[in-house]
Amino acid sequence: MSQEKVYLGVDLGGTTMSIGLLQSNGNIIFQSHTASKVHDGSQSALNQIIRTTEDIKRQLNSGMEITAMGIGIAGKVDTNNGVLIEATNLPNWHNVPLGEHLSKALQIPVKVDNDANVAALGEFFYGAGEKQNSMLMVTLGTGVGGGLILDGKLYSGIDGIAGEMGHMIIDIDGPVCNCGKQGCVEAFCGAKGILNRYLDKAQSKSGSLLKDINPDELTPKDISQAAIDGDPLAIETFDEVGMYLGVALANIANMLNIEIVVVGGGVANAGELILKPARKSLIEHALNVPGNRMKIVQATLGDRAGMIGASRLSFV
Amino acid sequence: MSQEKVYLGVDLGGTTMSIGLLQSNGNIIFQSHTASKVHDGSQSALNQIIRTTEDIKRQLNSGMEITAMGIGIAGKVDTNNGVLIEATNLPNWHNVPLGEHLSKALQIPVKVDNDANVAALGEFFYGAGEKQNSMLMVTLGTGVGGGLILDGKLYSGIDGIAGEMGHMIIDIDGPVCNCGKQGCVEAFCGAKGILNRYLDKAQSKSGSLLKDINPDELTPKDISQAAIDGDPLAIETFDEVGMYLGVALANIANMLNIEIVVVGGGVANAGELILKPARKSLIEHALNVPGNRMKIVQATLGDRAGMIGASRLSFV
Repeated sequence: MSQEKVYLGVDLGGTTMSIGLLQSNGNIIFQSHTASKVHDGSQSALNQIIRTTEDIKRQLNSGMEITAMGIGIAGKVDTNNGVLIEATNLPNWHNVPLGEHLSKALQIPVKVDNDANVAALGEFFYGAGEKQNSMLMVTLGTGVGGGLILDGKLYSGIDGIAGEMGHMIIDIDGPVCNCGKQGCVEAFCGAKGILNRYLDKAQSKSGSLLKDINPDELTPKDISQAAIDGDPLAIETFDEVGMYLGVALANIANMLNIEIVVVGGGVANAGELILKPARKSLIEHALNVPGNRMKIVQATLGDRAGMIGASRLSFV
Repeated sequence: MSQEKVYLGVDLGGTTMSIGLLQSNGNIIFQSHTASKVHDGSQSALNQIIRTTEDIKRQLNSGMEITAMGIGIAGKVDTNNGVLIEATNLPNWHNVPLGEHLSKALQIPVKVDNDANVAALGEFFYGAGEKQNSMLMVTLGTGVGGGLILDGKLYSGIDGIAGEMGHMIIDIDGPVCNCGKQGCVEAFCGAKGILNRYLDKAQSKSGSLLKDINPDELTPKDISQAAIDGDPLAIETFDEVGMYLGVALANIANMLNIEIVVVGGGVANAGELILKPARKSLIEHALNVPGNRMKIVQATLGDRAGMIGASRLSFV
């Protein structure tokens, strides 16, 4: 009897390392979420992946064969060679041959891509983008990231950088972004932009439900909870943030005429608070046909999008 | 002896109809440029194409066989069925089955696409984008159009609308565009935006070489000639217009990480006056890797890009 091929997906994050063993239909057979060792250096993180994989192998059903591994990590990746060129939040990681190292140790093919791209793959094949042809995954968090699927395939561009919608400039005289430029989407829709917008309002207007919280400890989650609790400044904040997101998505609709945008990441937990004004703004700012075509929906895989998408990366 | 396959390319413009007979390598065997009959209705224009094609057939070298025809026209096209859904400047043209009609009359397959897309194909296969993998063609004229080639193929999106970079919003509080929205690329880089920018300067500053021309008769060509002749206001105008173009191209570099942007259309005759500031602005506004990767060059096929690209459309 032939063995079923199963696939490992690794989401190598700054806080958590998730490893999953998945069937080709995206069904999770086993998953492990542990504190990530990435800050101890690449060797520690690699050893952590190898040990966890060996544990999984020992417990494996004899009818299954681990065929390949995919890894998602925040940073710039040479996808052809499986090399992490530089990591977003790990200053000591440079030119780490993750793919080659793990492939030798585990004796299976290993593919590597950045976290936004693998999350996009996850949502596209098994989540909110299922059965679509083309999709943008937007990750709203500290930063604003993007992963692009065109005609059913990950589109990474010539250097593997494509999909960086967080630094699309939509207001050339707008607020300064983390990247140093003015008026990027991230300056409006990233965590800092959202917090600053709310705090500005709270200084000049009344009605804030969050005035007893130290501004330095405030998170977008607090603001979305305040909006749900009826804080008018919080509702206004998300209305405006959604409007800016919609402008960026209108630009993408006009340029790429895709079917769906899937919005994930921590800030996206605000859900309709941000998606509803984004949809309104999309229709207002896009050309008719592409604007009406493109749906904006919330991601459905949550934290697991990266792990699930990484398993899919291993066999696309 | 087998016959060489040759292809017809038709650029069905508002002023001129160009028909060319081309070899597969883009070499033009015969070309005809006559006053377009599009304003007399679609039947007149179709008859004009059929008659010209029959003239070409009669004179054809016996070693050649006309294998297919491609047509480019300004408007929204259902490319699958060769139907012009609506034309940009022809209010009476609706749902015209150009492909089916011509295919029956001429007994060859006929493909139809919009003018920006066929011009992009022309420049990509035989012009400034040759030997590249991915390219954006920007057409600067009354409007600002775009045609996108990704991984060697025309990318049109789900409704055939993709590439519409003219209505990308780069300054949400910016000037009103022809489309009614604010701060689109076209509002800065289209003919009207350029003229208004120059005229505004000429009202408040001295040094204009064009003050004796009736403002209603001024064209972007006059302003580029004035810039060449040393008019400081004209030079400043193109510096600013190029800066805005560069912002839009930075957004595209970040989003698509493509190799080259080819700039054509009447306004692009200003050449380095606009391309030099656009390149500077691209580097300033894009992320490092995609910004440094992407070249901005002038189109090389001029008016013939549409006709040449249309012939290529017929056999891609």
